[in-house]
Amino acid sequence: MKHKRDILINFAPMEKKKLTNLNEIGEFGLIDRLTKSFENINGTTVKGVGDDAAVIYRDENSFTLVSTDMLIEGVHFDLIYTPLKHLGYKAVVVNLSDICAMNGTPEQIVVSLAISSKYTAEAMDELYEGMYLACKQYGVDLVGGDTTSSLSGLCISITAIGFVDKDKIAYRSGAKENDLLVVTGDLGGAYVGLQALNREKDVFLSNPEMQPELEGLEYLVERQLKPEARKDVIGFLDELGVVPTSMIDVSDGLASEILHLARASKLGCQLYENKIPIDPVTYQTAVDFNLDPTMCALNGGEDYELLFTIKQEDYDRIKGSPHFTVIGYMTDYSAGTYLVTKSETLIPLVAQGWNHFERGEN
Amino acid sequence: MKHKRDILINFAPMEKKKLTNLNEIGEFGLIDRLTKSFENINGTTVKGVGDDAAVIYRDENSFTLVSTDMLIEGVHFDLIYTPLKHLGYKAVVVNLSDICAMNGTPEQIVVSLAISSKYTAEAMDELYEGMYLACKQYGVDLVGGDTTSSLSGLCISITAIGFVDKDKIAYRSGAKENDLLVVTGDLGGAYVGLQALNREKDVFLSNPEMQPELEGLEYLVERQLKPEARKDVIGFLDELGVVPTSMIDVSDGLASEILHLARASKLGCQLYENKIPIDPVTYQTAVDFNLDPTMCALNGGEDYELLFTIKQEDYDRIKGSPHFTVIGYMTDYSAGTYLVTKSETLIPLVAQGWNHFERGEN
Repeated sequence: MKHKRDILINFAPMEKKKLTNLNEIGEFGLIDRLTKSFENINGTTVKGVGDDAAVIYRDENSFTLVSTDMLIEGVHFDLIYTPLKHLGYKAVVVNLSDICAMNGTPEQIVVSLAISSKYTAEAMDELYEGMYLACKQYGVDLVGGDTTSSLSGLCISITAIGFVDKDKIAYRSGAKENDLLVVTGDLGGAYVGLQALNREKDVFLSNPEMQPELEGLEYLVERQLKPEARKDVIGFLDELGVVPTSMIDVSDGLASEILHLARASKLGCQLYENKIPIDPVTYQTAVDFNLDPTMCALNGGEDYELLFTIKQEDYDRIKGSPHFTVIGYMTDYSAGTYLVTKSETLIPLVAQGWNHFERGEN
Repeated sequence: MKHKRDILINFAPMEKKKLTNLNEIGEFGLIDRLTKSFENINGTTVKGVGDDAAVIYRDENSFTLVSTDMLIEGVHFDLIYTPLKHLGYKAVVVNLSDICAMNGTPEQIVVSLAISSKYTAEAMDELYEGMYLACKQYGVDLVGGDTTSSLSGLCISITAIGFVDKDKIAYRSGAKENDLLVVTGDLGGAYVGLQALNREKDVFLSNPEMQPELEGLEYLVERQLKPEARKDVIGFLDELGVVPTSMIDVSDGLASEILHLARASKLGCQLYENKIPIDPVTYQTAVDFNLDPTMCALNGGEDYELLFTIKQEDYDRIKGSPHFTVIGYMTDYSAGTYLVTKSETLIPLVAQGWNHFERGEN
């Protein structure tokens, strides 16, 4: 009944050697380091690490999509200005967005929670109310999970499962030279909304009798606290008969996402600053905060819009839609990745985005 | 471009009302509370919350299985005696075990990590080494995940994806009256191993020059630190032509798992104390620690053996196997759930198991 296997217990401290601080290599560096040597062995694994969702064989016409995200109190959310119901909604939405970013349809989620003793069952009711609201909104079932205690704060891990037709899947790597670069909705709002909330938080902390002044900024606050996944866009594209050649969702900022598409597709690109869609409220509020609106769109993140490329011949199909803005085009790899500014100078695109190991936004 | 939606920000403290501490209702109570009002809406959702894994339609002959688990530093593992490589291995195995518990085959995992600043990249290498070892051992691919920082400690969330033939799936709820109750391997070892490790930790903390004395206890330590999922058993059952009428994995202790099967199947059961398989080392070490070996098997947990029921007519097929022990049988619901002791008295089965909201084992 008993099998001997390898086991080695030693309480002695590890041999001293040069150790690498996680801040030095960042999130993407760590993921590369940890996953580079691993090869997939299952015939049903179509695409592993490196896209918005993993792709698994389902049947001869379709794939299963799986995506997962973890949200940590104090890193990804601040409960001073995040109602738990909104947090639950957002936690679900950011996962569904990843399934949409493969041109897929989300259908199920599983939810794991680690909860510290400061939370009550009523607080968890609120969190779940938001999650259920998102499930209802997007036609998704919550089918399982795990619930445990944590020593500090709240940790939410959600995995979304969806599907996509084989002939409609959009990887990051499928863009071709001269494809048009398209983004949905408008950008920068979630980041500027976060600045507004942080300002009100500071006011509140210095004088708890003050109530937040967010009049006129409702759109920005909502972009930050209650983002939506662009499942509607997947439907629009289908109706228009357009299959993106590549796609990603805008979670870390436009610059970072464009670079992901360009690198995965081994291409360069030119992004036109004057084409980037920025809502007037976002623009004005950014200026009020002494922020460059373009930088908010490029590096702010959390907009959860979709960024994709299409063949030039598909332009006529999307040009009448209010949901899409052509912001640039893909070039040969050797041409590099550039922002063409309003003054028509070329600036290399740099991914600042969020670096979670540096704790906070830039 | 802009849609107005509901948003309400208010920093004022919540209205005072009677709030429920999570310790009062426990993990299962909280899950019931949070999930009871939710109804599945997708046609592809076959079974949601309430079994070892969620069941999703894959094709006309098979289902996709999805299971998720979260491990928290200080709650589920103690890094003083848990080598990171073993932790990585165990974190994967406990998820694969849930897929096996549906009579399924695991094929992919996604891994999310929240990592505090005390960890180095080299520590994460070790953790991943263990995860990859488990993947290789079980023929599973690591296909995605999320990596972020945490404010304290390490949090590991893994979701496993697998499949099962439609005519072989084993739910918790399928047992019938008079079915035989069968368990694989032996029980209680992981719990007694934990006691041994805790003893050595205390010695180490009072005198850091001491090295652990675990000679002769290797099997127990291994049961705790490097458990295995019984994927082999799924193969044995298939070869024997036996489809369990119900199944669950033993993660929380035999008593808790039997009660899950009985309740889900709306049955009672009789469990025979003298049939419970306990390894001689487990037995003797439990006695040395002044623990009742039967209680270690009933309430210890973390053995990751499989507990299942079969029709009486299948007994001949399994009786020659060293992997299986018949430990009781299912009765009518009204007959209750009982342990038949060695002295032939009936004691009601009680689930003590782990209660993660009470932080620690009992």
